[in-house]
Amino acid sequence: MNALRYHNQQLSLANIPPPLADGEALVRVTLSGICNTDLEIARGYAGFEGTLGHEFVGVVEEMPEAGGLLTPGTRVVGEINAGCGVCDLCRAGDSRHCPARTVLGIVGRDGAHAEFLKLPAANLLPVPNEISDESAVFVEPLAAACGILERAAISPDSNIAVVGDGKLGLLCAQVLRTTGAAVTLIGKHENKLAVARDRGLEPLLADRAQTRAREFDLVVEASGAPSGFELAMDLLRPRGVLVLKSTFQGSTEINSARIVVDEISVVGSRCGRFAPALELLRNKSVDVESLISHEFRLADGLRAMERAAEPGVMKVLLRP
Amino acid sequence: MNALRYHNQQLSLANIPPPLADGEALVRVTLSGICNTDLEIARGYAGFEGTLGHEFVGVVEEMPEAGGLLTPGTRVVGEINAGCGVCDLCRAGDSRHCPARTVLGIVGRDGAHAEFLKLPAANLLPVPNEISDESAVFVEPLAAACGILERAAISPDSNIAVVGDGKLGLLCAQVLRTTGAAVTLIGKHENKLAVARDRGLEPLLADRAQTRAREFDLVVEASGAPSGFELAMDLLRPRGVLVLKSTFQGSTEINSARIVVDEISVVGSRCGRFAPALELLRNKSVDVESLISHEFRLADGLRAMERAAEPGVMKVLLRP
Repeated sequence: MNALRYHNQQLSLANIPPPLADGEALVRVTLSGICNTDLEIARGYAGFEGTLGHEFVGVVEEMPEAGGLLTPGTRVVGEINAGCGVCDLCRAGDSRHCPARTVLGIVGRDGAHAEFLKLPAANLLPVPNEISDESAVFVEPLAAACGILERAAISPDSNIAVVGDGKLGLLCAQVLRTTGAAVTLIGKHENKLAVARDRGLEPLLADRAQTRAREFDLVVEASGAPSGFELAMDLLRPRGVLVLKSTFQGSTEINSARIVVDEISVVGSRCGRFAPALELLRNKSVDVESLISHEFRLADGLRAMERAAEPGVMKVLLRP
Repeated sequence: MNALRYHNQQLSLANIPPPLADGEALVRVTLSGICNTDLEIARGYAGFEGTLGHEFVGVVEEMPEAGGLLTPGTRVVGEINAGCGVCDLCRAGDSRHCPARTVLGIVGRDGAHAEFLKLPAANLLPVPNEISDESAVFVEPLAAACGILERAAISPDSNIAVVGDGKLGLLCAQVLRTTGAAVTLIGKHENKLAVARDRGLEPLLADRAQTRAREFDLVVEASGAPSGFELAMDLLRPRGVLVLKSTFQGSTEINSARIVVDEISVVGSRCGRFAPALELLRNKSVDVESLISHEFRLADGLRAMERAAEPGVMKVLLRP
């Protein structure tokens, strides 16, 4: 099968045998999405080797005998962390921090930019009929946006800003808006900010953001740039919460005196649960399909990765 | 009156007129304590000019007419943040983050290393008879340690480490121990760690701390050193909480990818309420008097400041 792989510091489209299920579920991939993490892996930042990709929708091809209710032919998405199954965290039903976990297309497990992938049967969730493939492929990043709600207390009175008008920022801002809180989206692109306004978000150009310094209860850093981190800090009121959603490579400078004197909280947020994200898509509380910039055939995966790295490009999808 | 002042980038013992109460309470200082913040101010780091000192116990000398229940002669301690009284925060009864606040001996208000000080009457609390002056002078830093409990959820099951075996670390560790949680105190001084063991804390030499990496639910950084910050991060389990208690001047490098991937929270903590700290002293839940290294006359304040800056010296007190 075709697979987009990173190996020996080189990205390539390889022809490899499909995975053997080995007691896990085998999924035929319908669509996969290119994430910024894929781009970072392809720059060698993450130390991963294998097939890239962790955003997908597909169809069950094979299920292990004890695979539960899902049968071959079921349309599915899949949680990307596969735990050891025996540690305290896994037994409590949350393998996202299992120290021995593999992560689809990121840590020790071949990913979704391929014709087939495998995952533990328990990681798969059926996709309701109301959700198109083009929406379902966003479940993973949308779940990551929902993860913010696990990490910070938000009420309809909260005054929230999201720094970054890329796809991550737009997903986070829409999810936060579903709580009833006021959400300001800060970015550099007039066209993206105009989209934000249509979705009930208050758009704000980054150049003018300092006029709102120390106003926000919660700020989400979703720009992936150190300048975004600094701006996010400036926007927080005393005792405000900064949610770090994007990772920077290397180290970031923080003003720890500001954190202590103003009693700021800096809170990391990574993966979220899939069920709430599926529900947001099912009841159309968020719009994801307008974030799609391009669709490529998997066979054109190298070109797709190049396109995904271009400024202003939002989600790029791959179809095997 | 004598006062230890920082002015024109110079620390000096000055003879100045006592403050006019001007509608506030006038307090005759019995004892004041030198804090590391005083040392930083005397190095010019904080931009403050005036009389230093924010840790004190004293006796009411004059009360304004609407001063409440406290009468001249009452032994008192005083909360150091004086708010504007009219903003939302002040009206909610918490002026610690009032944007127009003055802070005793730190921001826009002469401090406690003097024969007299003034504070709003509402800032003063009577000292119960069971508490000696030598203990009461620790209420402010002890309240700051109690402030951690406002900023992080702690249960008897929590596994806590405090990095730094100076006076701040020993106060924080003792306060945290009162919750029933297991508390490990990490430092470089065998003698201080031996004291820690007597107080129900588990001592751990900093050299050996990496053997406990990723073990702790909550770590308090109380060393004031960038190396302490790094160690504190290393000790946290996924989803752990790092409480920053001491300020570093300048910026600190953080590994933001670690914060995101392991969903760490970094939480600043500054001032606490005085009432819980007085209660801890009254019921002898914490020991503070053994933290006193030296007592000087206020007239020897310059020598006292030098002594307080020496390695291994704990609390230095000044008596007017």
